[in-house]
Amino acid sequence: MQIQAYAAPEVKAPLEPFTYEADPLGDFGAEIEISHCGVCHSDLHILDGDWGQQNPPLVPGHEIIGVVKSVGSQVDEALIGQRVGVGWQRSSCLSCEWCMTGHEELCARSVQTCVDNYGGFAQRIITDSRFVHPIPDALSSDNAAPLLCAGITVYSPLIRYAKPNMRVGVIGIGGLGHLAVQFAKAMGCEVTAFSTRDSKKDEAQQLGASHFVNSKDDTAMRSIRRSLDVIINTAPANFNLHPYLRALRPNGTMCFVANPPEKVSFYMNYLFDNQSIAGSSIGGRQMMRDMLDFSAHHNIKAWTEVLPFDSVNTAIDRLRENDVRYRFVLEN
Amino acid sequence: MQIQAYAAPEVKAPLEPFTYEADPLGDFGAEIEISHCGVCHSDLHILDGDWGQQNPPLVPGHEIIGVVKSVGSQVDEALIGQRVGVGWQRSSCLSCEWCMTGHEELCARSVQTCVDNYGGFAQRIITDSRFVHPIPDALSSDNAAPLLCAGITVYSPLIRYAKPNMRVGVIGIGGLGHLAVQFAKAMGCEVTAFSTRDSKKDEAQQLGASHFVNSKDDTAMRSIRRSLDVIINTAPANFNLHPYLRALRPNGTMCFVANPPEKVSFYMNYLFDNQSIAGSSIGGRQMMRDMLDFSAHHNIKAWTEVLPFDSVNTAIDRLRENDVRYRFVLEN
Repeated sequence: MQIQAYAAPEVKAPLEPFTYEADPLGDFGAEIEISHCGVCHSDLHILDGDWGQQNPPLVPGHEIIGVVKSVGSQVDEALIGQRVGVGWQRSSCLSCEWCMTGHEELCARSVQTCVDNYGGFAQRIITDSRFVHPIPDALSSDNAAPLLCAGITVYSPLIRYAKPNMRVGVIGIGGLGHLAVQFAKAMGCEVTAFSTRDSKKDEAQQLGASHFVNSKDDTAMRSIRRSLDVIINTAPANFNLHPYLRALRPNGTMCFVANPPEKVSFYMNYLFDNQSIAGSSIGGRQMMRDMLDFSAHHNIKAWTEVLPFDSVNTAIDRLRENDVRYRFVLEN
Repeated sequence: MQIQAYAAPEVKAPLEPFTYEADPLGDFGAEIEISHCGVCHSDLHILDGDWGQQNPPLVPGHEIIGVVKSVGSQVDEALIGQRVGVGWQRSSCLSCEWCMTGHEELCARSVQTCVDNYGGFAQRIITDSRFVHPIPDALSSDNAAPLLCAGITVYSPLIRYAKPNMRVGVIGIGGLGHLAVQFAKAMGCEVTAFSTRDSKKDEAQQLGASHFVNSKDDTAMRSIRRSLDVIINTAPANFNLHPYLRALRPNGTMCFVANPPEKVSFYMNYLFDNQSIAGSSIGGRQMMRDMLDFSAHHNIKAWTEVLPFDSVNTAIDRLRENDVRYRFVLEN
């Protein structure tokens, strides 16, 4: 099957129309006619060649929503016609200890949707039906697409570390952070939003934050010492961690969901009341479905700006400038 | 009451006999006739003035075992005559959220036994009876004394992070590490001991380690990648964390129980399979009692070299040289 997509012919080049011949469906494949695809910072890293060896042409896109048109020989045909989503991960071994315990994201043979594969900036995709997730009716496609990567990325550590009535901080009110605030609020937590820009304050409160702290304001940062149980750090930047570590309560966790390009460094004595610094990437298949259900039940939506697929380069250029609140979604 | 002790008349000075007038017992005090006191690295930090403002004379000692001789007006007299222990913490507010939930060590009003107080290098001590812990009969006093600080310090994070059948690494086979190996083994874990000295290998295995890795051996360090669920780091030193972070399995935790003098630094991407870096200090009162019971049931003993109290300076000098396997205990 021929698939029409948008690809960068080389690293750091603009995208252009590109046609490729897809692999056959095989036993477990599903052919999805794509209606929407979110544009994530990870797509920029892929296009910029930041993540090692990849062979152009590069077709980014891993927040995919569409309708199943055909399925492989071993797949229940009831999947045909369903509205589904595909996120960062497109397959795994399904047999290792991590896959067997619902942690497919940790599988050593995990395959990413658009790293060394052609992704979702396309009209169609053929991918493993077992990593295709039904989208609850209550979610509109453009609001739901970013949940498939940005959403699961922040939901996963919140499920792991947050409990109702905890105080949760979210650093960075952007594609990930604006979902983290909504999830944490819906989990019964009291949310503090951190941003370097006061212009985010009103929106943070609309999203559900009870408190807003401009992280450049030293006095404000001092005023929240020992006040937060969980901090979700969505900012892929290097900054002084100490004010945040001091903001952690005993037993608290600061979890990074974005990877700073340089080493993090801090004095361990800030963690000696049982605090920790953690990393987290995405989540397994069941967590993805839980997250979608939770979003449907709690009316959690990505705030999006929808553009037609042929404006993909506009979306990418504006995302580089952080000129989006809070996610571009491309629409076929 | 006059108490005979050993004190450093100033920072970094040798200890010498010192007599002081103790506070009265008050409502909740207990007078303990000290039979044994362990010598911990923290005592060196106190003597060296590493931990900020303290007023000499300095009487270290916080791994105290003795017999209760008298008690305050509100204390059950049944405590008199009991063999008890006192650890790093001598009191707390008993009313904050941490104290109310068994985490007295996290209380903002925690008081240390020998920081800004006269500690256990003495014939007697008067201290809060509510932080005095009965010692199970099965434990001999010299073997039990180091449990009160070194023991609880490693038991606490193991209880928090380790489960039976997990693979646990212990960095540094010394006062803390030799207890961590025993606890982890008794908890049903498979233990890997890390040391820079091959001379520790046989003893690590005697203590219960299934594996020994010389951490200077790059090949050995590479061979254990993605193999450990928990690493307890007892080494208060700065070293390259990356080989250890790569040794963590997904969801694994590296917990520091000693404080490196300089910042730790590492690339966060080593933690993106849900790993974390944590700190931990001691434990609450109930955990202390659980730890003593666990030690009694599982025959866990500090390996000690017992010296008379008047050899206190010898013990301190030799501890500075790491010339002890694995704990000096002073005996009256």
